Amino acid sequence: MTESLLERRARLLGPNMSTFYEEPVHLVRGEGVWLWDADGRQYLDCYNNVPHVGHCNPKVVKAICDQASTLNTHTRYLHEGILDYVEALTGTFGPKFDTALMCCTGSEANDVALRMAQALTGKTGVIATDHTYHGNTTAVHQLSRSNPPPGGYWESVAFVPAPDSYRPLGGEAGLAHGRAFAKEVEKQIAALEEKGFGFSALMLCPFFANEGFPDLPPGWLDPTVEVVRKAGGVIIADEVQPGFGRLGSHFWGHEKLGFTPDIVTIGKPMANGHPVAAVVAPRETMYEFRNNFRYFNTFAGNPVSCAAAMATLNVVLEDRLQENARLVGDYAKQGLQELAARHEAIGDVRGSGLFFGVELVTDRESKAPATAYTKQIANGMRQRGVLLNFLGKHYNVLKMRPPMVFTKANVDQVIETLDRVLAETPLG
Amino acid sequence: MTESLLERRARLLGPNMSTFYEEPVHLVRGEGVWLWDADGRQYLDCYNNVPHVGHCNPKVVKAICDQASTLNTHTRYLHEGILDYVEALTGTFGPKFDTALMCCTGSEANDVALRMAQALTGKTGVIATDHTYHGNTTAVHQLSRSNPPPGGYWESVAFVPAPDSYRPLGGEAGLAHGRAFAKEVEKQIAALEEKGFGFSALMLCPFFANEGFPDLPPGWLDPTVEVVRKAGGVIIADEVQPGFGRLGSHFWGHEKLGFTPDIVTIGKPMANGHPVAAVVAPRETMYEFRNNFRYFNTFAGNPVSCAAAMATLNVVLEDRLQENARLVGDYAKQGLQELAARHEAIGDVRGSGLFFGVELVTDRESKAPATAYTKQIANGMRQRGVLLNFLGKHYNVLKMRPPMVFTKANVDQVIETLDRVLAETPLG
Repeated sequence: MTESLLERRARLLGPNMSTFYEEPVHLVRGEGVWLWDADGRQYLDCYNNVPHVGHCNPKVVKAICDQASTLNTHTRYLHEGILDYVEALTGTFGPKFDTALMCCTGSEANDVALRMAQALTGKTGVIATDHTYHGNTTAVHQLSRSNPPPGGYWESVAFVPAPDSYRPLGGEAGLAHGRAFAKEVEKQIAALEEKGFGFSALMLCPFFANEGFPDLPPGWLDPTVEVVRKAGGVIIADEVQPGFGRLGSHFWGHEKLGFTPDIVTIGKPMANGHPVAAVVAPRETMYEFRNNFRYFNTFAGNPVSCAAAMATLNVVLEDRLQENARLVGDYAKQGLQELAARHEAIGDVRGSGLFFGVELVTDRESKAPATAYTKQIANGMRQRGVLLNFLGKHYNVLKMRPPMVFTKANVDQVIETLDRVLAETPLG
Repeated sequence: MTESLLERRARLLGPNMSTFYEEPVHLVRGEGVWLWDADGRQYLDCYNNVPHVGHCNPKVVKAICDQASTLNTHTRYLHEGILDYVEALTGTFGPKFDTALMCCTGSEANDVALRMAQALTGKTGVIATDHTYHGNTTAVHQLSRSNPPPGGYWESVAFVPAPDSYRPLGGEAGLAHGRAFAKEVEKQIAALEEKGFGFSALMLCPFFANEGFPDLPPGWLDPTVEVVRKAGGVIIADEVQPGFGRLGSHFWGHEKLGFTPDIVTIGKPMANGHPVAAVVAPRETMYEFRNNFRYFNTFAGNPVSCAAAMATLNVVLEDRLQENARLVGDYAKQGLQELAARHEAIGDVRGSGLFFGVELVTDRESKAPATAYTKQIANGMRQRGVLLNFLGKHYNVLKMRPPMVFTKANVDQVIETLDRVLAETPLG
């Protein structure tokens, strides 16, 4: 070829579209936890949560094909697919969450959730952590402090320090850390009220995935919930990453943290890669939102999307993948802890179920983030056939979040490869 | 059943979710231009532009199934599907439009387009018509005057009167009407500059679909384009409805109106119902957007979405559906004009290709809109097995916008049914 794939990509998609890894992977096939590149090389996918029940899961593929060849329209006609799915979906929640609004992306779901909060409270002030990501629409992009919008943030958006169990706010870990977090939220609520926006919502990922998935005890958020309720605001739990059983111990992230949000948003893994997302909320909230904003989304909740989502949920439940996440995740954490005994760079091992990783430091005492090193390790893993990535406030946390069909044998491969890559990569 | 489908819908999706028709249709199957309900009743689909190449088009279904069972990931890995598609897509445009950004819904596309304009101009003031619809995100919802957001419109949004060829601004039709429109745009640009937002973009559907698809001559927009350019702003053409050959004479709506926009957004018909949309723009514009806002969308441009979009575009081109739209659309307009000779309620016949309709009035002289009557007719057509709907500034325009495989025989059925429904429905 005279023009490389990367050159063609720059020409057709623009010159500054990001890729993973120093040497991007050109994928052509996927199955279960495996991916293959154009040269026939096989990779263990230890990163992608979207193919929740495995790449090209045959039951999901069949559901998509069957429905796509039967009917695909929109929700202004009646169709049982969306009703069957929403009934099954809300059945995985507590009784408070009895309705759902379907959309196509997690960004759309969060964009809607912010307006639901506005409809409920009549206020517009929103609080998020200073290292989160809730999506890419104009409105939710405002919540990404790591990615500031030109022209600055809306005055109605406020940030609180992202929780960090390895370096807790005020130096104290556990529930004290949670009380310190609540104080920060209280401060920002007062600031939003002072500015005249009032306080509408605190939006957070209940696993604080992008923040580096800190290790937080149940009850950690209770003081914050109290502060939010007292101020008349609502809590939006963005379950796009931790949801659908991934955390092993619970089906939803907010259950693990032990609180009940007011609005829940879900996305990525929901239909195994088919563009489906949703907002789950009490019926009264749904009513207020539609009454204030109306809402119609042509593609959302179409019969094919619902068939894909239903098949995915059925596989999660029938194949007991939450339990698999718990068992395999515990095994993985144990393996990582054993690695930590041999590799000084591993400062902390964290995770729950099939969302786990290690925080890399240049020095365990000072806990100085090994940011550049972490990037080297992620690239080294890719070169040795294991796909993972890194995130966190200092971008020094290796993030592993594989399809839910991950096995202990897959974990062995990750641990062995990581052992080797850490050993062969000198720490700065 | 003890609980009806509508009751179940209210329980699971919320009590105020809209449906089409007084007696909503419960669909179970689709093929080509046909839909079937749960009782086995057949309907002619004269309304849905999303199944552009026909409900359940076998080539599109096959493309989806083949790719869904091979690989479905995101654009941070390399994949040829998105490159092949964007190459084919941009090939249908003039040379100015050499890159595309994929997303999942027309709303997302328009939300991105507004930020592209902001990145290009450094300004935030936006102008739209007072009877348009550009989608459902927080930002683009601001452009729907017919659907005002709680708390009022952002100060940075301004509206101009929707074009109306049947009742033109200032009384003069044709190019004079276009000059009057440009004056209104000029006035709002000055107002946005006065308020300190500056002028970023004029966003419009080049067929003014929601406004009631007025009959505008080529060159009609030229004075407006001049005004926008002089002010340093950009024009965003929302081609979600008129694009992909629907208008018969041209592949894109802006070509028919005879102007070159700066940014183009596309959606609904793009992948025959699979959730796919895009923003098409010059490479420099794409660069500026990504440089200012970064952007990643997990589901957007995934291999399955691109396979569906590619199959759809191939069918449009290979089956010469633009030419079909021209021939069948002309035939439909002729039929509607013949109907107008017999039915006083038809005040105006308009359309281009497979996007046509009639404006219904209570009196041809005063042109008083027959709004309630139009709704009756749409419901009467549904009862007689033809699905269409209505829109326009006065909601008195019957809108017909069928799949592109519509035939003259299908038109005959529509005309005969409309003849009958008009005859049996007394006008007020």
